[in-house]
Amino acid sequence: MDYNEKALQMHEKYGGKLRTESNVNINTKQDLSIAYTPGVARVCEVIAQDKRKVYKYTLKKRTVAVVTDGSAVLGLGNIGPEAALPVMEGKCILFKEYAGLDAFPICLDTQNTQEIIAIVKAIAPTFGGINLEDISAPRCFEIEEALQDIGIPVMHDDQHGTAITLMAALINASKLAGKPINKMKIVINGAGSAGVAITKLILGISINSSPEIRAKDVIVCDSKGIIGHHRDDVKRDFVKTELANLTNNDAKTGLLETALDGADVFIGVSVGDVVTPEMIQSMNDRSIVFAMANPIPEIMPELAKAAGAFIVGTGRSDFPNQINNVLIFPGIFKGALEAQVSQFTSEMKLAAAFALAGAIETPTLSEILPSPLNKNVAYLVGEAVKEAAKRSSKSRPKQVVMG
Amino acid sequence: MDYNEKALQMHEKYGGKLRTESNVNINTKQDLSIAYTPGVARVCEVIAQDKRKVYKYTLKKRTVAVVTDGSAVLGLGNIGPEAALPVMEGKCILFKEYAGLDAFPICLDTQNTQEIIAIVKAIAPTFGGINLEDISAPRCFEIEEALQDIGIPVMHDDQHGTAITLMAALINASKLAGKPINKMKIVINGAGSAGVAITKLILGISINSSPEIRAKDVIVCDSKGIIGHHRDDVKRDFVKTELANLTNNDAKTGLLETALDGADVFIGVSVGDVVTPEMIQSMNDRSIVFAMANPIPEIMPELAKAAGAFIVGTGRSDFPNQINNVLIFPGIFKGALEAQVSQFTSEMKLAAAFALAGAIETPTLSEILPSPLNKNVAYLVGEAVKEAAKRSSKSRPKQVVMG
Repeated sequence: MDYNEKALQMHEKYGGKLRTESNVNINTKQDLSIAYTPGVARVCEVIAQDKRKVYKYTLKKRTVAVVTDGSAVLGLGNIGPEAALPVMEGKCILFKEYAGLDAFPICLDTQNTQEIIAIVKAIAPTFGGINLEDISAPRCFEIEEALQDIGIPVMHDDQHGTAITLMAALINASKLAGKPINKMKIVINGAGSAGVAITKLILGISINSSPEIRAKDVIVCDSKGIIGHHRDDVKRDFVKTELANLTNNDAKTGLLETALDGADVFIGVSVGDVVTPEMIQSMNDRSIVFAMANPIPEIMPELAKAAGAFIVGTGRSDFPNQINNVLIFPGIFKGALEAQVSQFTSEMKLAAAFALAGAIETPTLSEILPSPLNKNVAYLVGEAVKEAAKRSSKSRPKQVVMG
Repeated sequence: MDYNEKALQMHEKYGGKLRTESNVNINTKQDLSIAYTPGVARVCEVIAQDKRKVYKYTLKKRTVAVVTDGSAVLGLGNIGPEAALPVMEGKCILFKEYAGLDAFPICLDTQNTQEIIAIVKAIAPTFGGINLEDISAPRCFEIEEALQDIGIPVMHDDQHGTAITLMAALINASKLAGKPINKMKIVINGAGSAGVAITKLILGISINSSPEIRAKDVIVCDSKGIIGHHRDDVKRDFVKTELANLTNNDAKTGLLETALDGADVFIGVSVGDVVTPEMIQSMNDRSIVFAMANPIPEIMPELAKAAGAFIVGTGRSDFPNQINNVLIFPGIFKGALEAQVSQFTSEMKLAAAFALAGAIETPTLSEILPSPLNKNVAYLVGEAVKEAAKRSSKSRPKQVVMG
């Protein structure tokens, strides 16, 4: 029996993976009077007098909403909110299993950007953080951006969870290959939500990081080839225009093949089978290939290895070096909620990447990152995020609110 | 230590009463592949092909949203969404404890009627039913009405939970007093959400019920006295105009005192201490007094008894005959979700009232309803609601009506 059939059976058996539970028993009148009326009224009054007390007396401080509109679910596309629910329940149970956080799926029956923004703002009182999930580009950028000032941290995991995990992989790969990140020629294939976030994080945009870990030479390609100001379609697309401003310093033109010639790193967040062994051969020595398209990578690991790739990672669990954002999202929310920050900052994201990279004592060519099953990672990432929050609240007291 | 202090301590200890849990363990790569990617993709595809399958493979079929805007919380008034959260968590754990349902609080940071309607519509895909809670009148009527066609049952508990519980109490009190409901002179004090719902349910509005249980002589009072077409302020209020159309057949005028003279039943959903012993004395023999204002009843039970009341009930747990909607809301949602109805009908509400009335074998003057701690009630109410749903789908496929 394959995973598909097993997954259907399991989901039918439980009728979904997530449930709610009560922390208290209700067996006596006193139980009812303390958990519900009349006693609960006192708790309400205390919060009404000081809204911050909602963190002390309710589930808010440990609860994340996993919000989607079902527009870009896994590799399945725009399948709608009902069909997205099994994925969101899955994320919720991973929050629990890895970070001990409570999480609840909110699948929205609208794909209107402004409506989604308004709804997330409106439901925020219940939650300590918002995990945006599987929302298609470019709406995901606008939605995430508009929600940065609602008082609780909001992160689109497809962008940043993926980017931070990739950054951690790149940090360790850089050591193994003996190439500092700021000397690498990096090619990213895919200009969707993950591609954009990866580009910004590895360039160190709005991060006060040390120069060696800030990439200087990045080219982003999409299905039409190298993104740059030479392309008319790029001029009409605000996301790709920004990418063109940030990357492709030498104003190269051409296809992915051209970009990869002489590159040190390939980062694929696109579709399967778009990289050939010849392209890998054209890369520099000790090349790093992260082919993260799912379920079919941009190039199969054995092909890439045979063509000379030094380190190969994919998004899949059945090959070595799985780059899976489950290594990041539970921990980064854990840290942010425990520190009660009002936003995720770039510094927290970079701290999370370093914590993940450091979570494996001796990275090797076939183990650059810890296993997605390693539940200590979320703790380490969370502590690093809390530390970063503490640092920023000292340097910039107005931007980060500590609990 | 009083309930208030105990409630604060308990809420702080747990940091809220509700939590989420996973139904499956994630310990191996296979676990991850079945609960999450890649296996979950198959579950998504199956639902994408047939949206109704969301009931088979997700938490939807057993999950209720408890939605508030914090505008009318307990007797505390408009304290906002954060301060309302402890009450909503309380409702959620009662759904679990009494009906085995999963429930999650959604506290909205908007009190705009149209926005609330749009948000509840948008979040519906995750839920099998919506419990509206502590939303002020008259917005609660418009919001509930507008949400009747969203495909899942929506009920404002402050209206119908209270009305159904009261109806059950009235059914048993009617037997004990030897007065059929259609012969009773009934006075309702309070024209808010509960008062309106009680009026409609006891009159049997849009219910195909037997004549003996349909009240014929009802007067509703508000703080200005008897509601009728003689009052200019009533003409300007669409809710009170409807009440005037439905009640006060003899076009009485005056205050509550006048209404109660010669009445058989007093139903209070107003504020404390508005009924005097003299008013009780002016009522008919074997009078029934349901003084449900919280925390101070319209008249204290011992005073009402001393003035000659035959049966006295309140909303409080420390007096006999507590009329508490925890006796209804878990069971009515349980039945509705198990039957997967798209709406609550008046017939289901009446069936729930009869099931609750029948849940106590031999009602007595000091025990007209089961204890709120009796967890078998939700099962009985749920079964009755399912039966009502079955009957209606057989008798009139297009319009759900009890036989």
